[in-house]
Amino acid sequence: MVKVGIIGSTGYAGAELVRLLTGHREAEVIWYGSRSYIDKKYADVYQNMFEIVDDRCLDDNMEELAERADVIFTATPQGFCASVMSEGILSKAKVIDLSADYRIKNVDIYERWYGITHKSPQFIGEAVYGLCEVNREQIKKARLTANPGCYTTCSILTAYPLAKEGLINMKSLIIDAKSGTSGAGRGAKVPNLFCEVNENIKAYGVGTHRHTPEIEEQLGYASGEDVVISFTPHLVPMNRGILVTEYAELKSGVTDGDVRSAYDRYYGNESFVRVLEEGRYPETKWVEGSNYVDIGFKIDPRTNRVILMGAMDNLVKGAAGQAVQNMNLMFGFKESEGLELVPVFP
Amino acid sequence: MVKVGIIGSTGYAGAELVRLLTGHREAEVIWYGSRSYIDKKYADVYQNMFEIVDDRCLDDNMEELAERADVIFTATPQGFCASVMSEGILSKAKVIDLSADYRIKNVDIYERWYGITHKSPQFIGEAVYGLCEVNREQIKKARLTANPGCYTTCSILTAYPLAKEGLINMKSLIIDAKSGTSGAGRGAKVPNLFCEVNENIKAYGVGTHRHTPEIEEQLGYASGEDVVISFTPHLVPMNRGILVTEYAELKSGVTDGDVRSAYDRYYGNESFVRVLEEGRYPETKWVEGSNYVDIGFKIDPRTNRVILMGAMDNLVKGAAGQAVQNMNLMFGFKESEGLELVPVFP
Amino acid sequence: MVKVGIIGSTGYAGAELVRLLTGHREAEVIWYGSRSYIDKKYADVYQNMFEIVDDRCLDDNMEELAERADVIFTATPQGFCASVMSEGILSKAKVIDLSADYRIKNVDIYERWYGITHKSPQFIGEAVYGLCEVNREQIKKARLTANPGCYTTCSILTAYPLAKEGLINMKSLIIDAKSGTSGAGRGAKVPNLFCEVNENIKAYGVGTHRHTPEIEEQLGYASGEDVVISFTPHLVPMNRGILVTEYAELKSGVTDGDVRSAYDRYYGNESFVRVLEEGRYPETKWVEGSNYVDIGFKIDPRTNRVILMGAMDNLVKGAAGQAVQNMNLMFGFKESEGLELVPVFP
Amino acid sequence: MVKVGIIGSTGYAGAELVRLLTGHREAEVIWYGSRSYIDKKYADVYQNMFEIVDDRCLDDNMEELAERADVIFTATPQGFCASVMSEGILSKAKVIDLSADYRIKNVDIYERWYGITHKSPQFIGEAVYGLCEVNREQIKKARLTANPGCYTTCSILTAYPLAKEGLINMKSLIIDAKSGTSGAGRGAKVPNLFCEVNENIKAYGVGTHRHTPEIEEQLGYASGEDVVISFTPHLVPMNRGILVTEYAELKSGVTDGDVRSAYDRYYGNESFVRVLEEGRYPETKWVEGSNYVDIGFKIDPRTNRVILMGAMDNLVKGAAGQAVQNMNLMFGFKESEGLELVPVFP
Repeated sequence: MVKVGIIGSTGYAGAELVRLLTGHREAEVIWYGSRSYIDKKYADVYQNMFEIVDDRCLDDNMEELAERADVIFTATPQGFCASVMSEGILSKAKVIDLSADYRIKNVDIYERWYGITHKSPQFIGEAVYGLCEVNREQIKKARLTANPGCYTTCSILTAYPLAKEGLINMKSLIIDAKSGTSGAGRGAKVPNLFCEVNENIKAYGVGTHRHTPEIEEQLGYASGEDVVISFTPHLVPMNRGILVTEYAELKSGVTDGDVRSAYDRYYGNESFVRVLEEGRYPETKWVEGSNYVDIGFKIDPRTNRVILMGAMDNLVKGAAGQAVQNMNLMFGFKESEGLELVPVFP
Repeated sequence: MVKVGIIGSTGYAGAELVRLLTGHREAEVIWYGSRSYIDKKYADVYQNMFEIVDDRCLDDNMEELAERADVIFTATPQGFCASVMSEGILSKAKVIDLSADYRIKNVDIYERWYGITHKSPQFIGEAVYGLCEVNREQIKKARLTANPGCYTTCSILTAYPLAKEGLINMKSLIIDAKSGTSGAGRGAKVPNLFCEVNENIKAYGVGTHRHTPEIEEQLGYASGEDVVISFTPHLVPMNRGILVTEYAELKSGVTDGDVRSAYDRYYGNESFVRVLEEGRYPETKWVEGSNYVDIGFKIDPRTNRVILMGAMDNLVKGAAGQAVQNMNLMFGFKESEGLELVPVFP
Repeated sequence: MVKVGIIGSTGYAGAELVRLLTGHREAEVIWYGSRSYIDKKYADVYQNMFEIVDDRCLDDNMEELAERADVIFTATPQGFCASVMSEGILSKAKVIDLSADYRIKNVDIYERWYGITHKSPQFIGEAVYGLCEVNREQIKKARLTANPGCYTTCSILTAYPLAKEGLINMKSLIIDAKSGTSGAGRGAKVPNLFCEVNENIKAYGVGTHRHTPEIEEQLGYASGEDVVISFTPHLVPMNRGILVTEYAELKSGVTDGDVRSAYDRYYGNESFVRVLEEGRYPETKWVEGSNYVDIGFKIDPRTNRVILMGAMDNLVKGAAGQAVQNMNLMFGFKESEGLELVPVFP
Repeated sequence: MVKVGIIGSTGYAGAELVRLLTGHREAEVIWYGSRSYIDKKYADVYQNMFEIVDDRCLDDNMEELAERADVIFTATPQGFCASVMSEGILSKAKVIDLSADYRIKNVDIYERWYGITHKSPQFIGEAVYGLCEVNREQIKKARLTANPGCYTTCSILTAYPLAKEGLINMKSLIIDAKSGTSGAGRGAKVPNLFCEVNENIKAYGVGTHRHTPEIEEQLGYASGEDVVISFTPHLVPMNRGILVTEYAELKSGVTDGDVRSAYDRYYGNESFVRVLEEGRYPETKWVEGSNYVDIGFKIDPRTNRVILMGAMDNLVKGAAGQAVQNMNLMFGFKESEGLELVPVFP
């Protein structure tokens, strides 16, 4: 059994890691890190874990944790992981960072969009961007994996085959994204109160959301050109789920069959990406609680645009599920171990 | 007091008409038409009206209704109003049609998108498109007003000043719209059940939604060019509210100030359009229950696009409220009579 | 025009006061008190008020406010109103306190249930309990009105005629109450986050909720005996609305007709209490946004119990609406002025 | 592998059976019965099952199914199972009926409350009431198991130890229950539309709900006396979950410790019943997606009543999960096989 430590285990993504690892046959959590709840019983913070997890919360001392654990998940605010990372830690334990600290290769871009100084840029180079379907082989060899953001996972996977195969004009790409509220975390803030979110929808971070450069970088690698996109996230009155609606001009002569073939080529053998049949579009509810990304598309001959749609559970494939998938790759486990979750409906 | 008849008074839009007219000082409802509930007490169908409305539901005989009423609202399925319209009716009562029957001037486009034969195309010419802020003067003189669709009202008003002033490249316009579920009506269908909509978001009618040609026609008039857009509606787990997010390339040299000036020019004196201050974006909850459209925008210099956002209550400004506003114009009442509704929050 | 000051105008109850008073023909708000948002534009805190309220927030100096206002509403945390109350204030302005400070006549009970020391018990005696349908005549003469709690208004009005007429065994009374989340206020707390409330229902304050002694005192006056009840509130994933389900043994020989007659006697002429017809039960949605209390009942011969149900909008009749109704009584306005609100559905 | 047939596999309970059995190591579904969707791909009806279930829907021919399956689940409307049941079927396959047809031993009571004639009363005697924690040994030997109702499972398990141990006055028992909307099924009815349920709470079936006699019968067995209760269900705007709040007078001298001991005695070794620690109350969200029933209680010395609270996922422990638990018992599998589901939060 691989020994797992979680720093930030009482946030929503951390708690989802706990849920998923509870059902993992090769791993056991030995450290429930939570700066806010040190010494408190984990099941008192998350009552769903009553009689399942008996442990108390520990601190966020990664040096000590690295002595005890084989792998550390950091589900922490931006900057934390970079501020404590060291060669000593990485020489003892693998690290899967759910924050953005090692996602972006260009440290200037990271610092500009996040407004913080990166404390350990020397590890950015070796960090592998943990989008399993794209970087599987590198992840297998990684010591440090940068787990992708929720919006980015859904946005990139939905567009990836078309970007890679050159079927769309990358300059025309617009991503309109909609997320449930768990993506905002468990912090007590007025805008996330029930009464403020319920019966409401709004755009936020218009033109400035931090997931933008991450999407641009990855789709840039895929397409082989500099990518600059419009990305607009919206807050939806639901707990879980992300839906992205992407608009792009088709390159001359590209057919419906070309688009479907591209998806088949890249995702035909993927366990966690489901390309829906013609005329069916993804809905977040159909993937809730699971590690799936569902993808649909429609070509609009009137505008010569293709509309791509992707749906995913932001806490599973968009956070904890993908992190476990990365762990599975890094330790040579079956990739789907602990992730064979049937979506819960209704 | 103007005598009002409502055909389709037990649908959600019809019920909202009843709510609004209850508070109108110049009008009284004398006919609660409802094919499904004939002879049933209106307040048994809508219990909120208990002790407010004592009437029973009547049939949908517009000929007879025209004898008794000064104005008829038809909140009926597509095709109904066109199938019963006659010179006789229009000579006796003004008609405000909340269906799409007289919204589109080109009958071929209507028939293609709606898949039905128009039964009285001879009245299309005289029908005035009832978007009050755009066609106010013609509405004042109309016998037959085509009340705009919900998505269309929000989509058009959000883009109108920029289209009219030539600030954006119309070919680049993409409208990503999100609606609460009351827009789907009160029909008993599985996809509109609570458990199917709650905790879910999906796109629907991708590339084929019937409000598309209506938006294109009106923005075509505004911009003076043929307009073909991408329009994608989404279903959001909330009762009321539409949010549109629109993306367009700015024409060369257009500044933030130019955009704001355009909005000021067209909406500076409008009671029901609120252009938000810089950095503030509309949210559907802030307009719920009211006749307001809230508009915000953001220029993204990275992409040279402007992102426009509009929010509105689909049952008020998107249906019954605008219909009452049209009635007020057609009868020379104060335009805001019965519509001075403060948004309900939370 | 009566000049109104609101202390605590940026809480949910305070904001509802602002909404209602905007439509009041005899009153105008001249002081938007908010300790948290001093100098901030009110419409920046509640964007629904954009272009409706132009004022900035002021502090909570009641001494100064009493010089300027004819009536002061205090929508403030428990203890605040009692801590600042003075003869000087009451000699200049009438006060309607939405907190619990003057609701309970026995100061020991207040201090025990609320866990705070009452700072001005000398005013408890003159304060009138502002349940309009019960204490109308005293309210008309009051300087200081204690506006009832949300749960209490609904609980008391639902049982009042049966308690007053001696139709039920008061010792058997059990009240199971369900409330929307706005009752918890706008404070940023984890248990009120969207993700914690949504898709969830729970009981809270079991056996200890502070509204219990208030209900007991008032039903004690009605029935002429000491009343001790079970009262259990529950948090429901909706913004507004309270539903109470009350269980009581019928006294020997009491019939369905007796119960209905009792309701008719007390509420037959009341504008804001609607006793539903046989077989119809209240739903919170049917009163949303209005000042109504809807009441239904069912006698169960198998158990010889009567089940009473009452529904109300907790922010209107349960807080701001009743406060305005009290103001109308205290100033001799039409009792329904500013409160002729049709419930919003859906 | 046990071969499983499901009649009614496209209702919500049937679909939950499919979800759970997908993860069961000893069983495989070989018949997806659905009268409404014969020949349609199951995954086209429940898109969450895309690429998980490839089968098409079959009819509801139980005779034929009994030839092929080892166990049949009937998740069908009341009366169906009784109308087709035969010795032939039972001699070939075990049957777990999720409807009420065999739950009530007294056929007169069944017919009175359900308003239908029982077509095969000869099997009522041998049917075992499938409340696993109470009737485990008989279930192991059953051919025909009557799977309990959702409200009943939660209501009975919450009160059972106190009834069995004689700690409460059974005549005083009142059950106020709250359910999510999936309990109403997937039928297309106006009252279950999103806009009717959302932002709303109501009581229904007051004094007449069909689960009442089932609770009374079972608690009668437990307490050894005739039990007549008040049972009031409420509809809550959430998909899943039932919360029951039960009120009962404590018998003289019963202490908090007595109540806790009783729970420990009956549930101390139960995998799926979690009795919460003092001061903690159940919430439906903490059990969502799992087979747990969470129970809490509070003694109120003011009224000498105990308030019991139980929470459960109505589709799991209240339907499909308990049905699988019954199957596990009937076939000698590990009782928790396929049911080791960690509650999903948030």
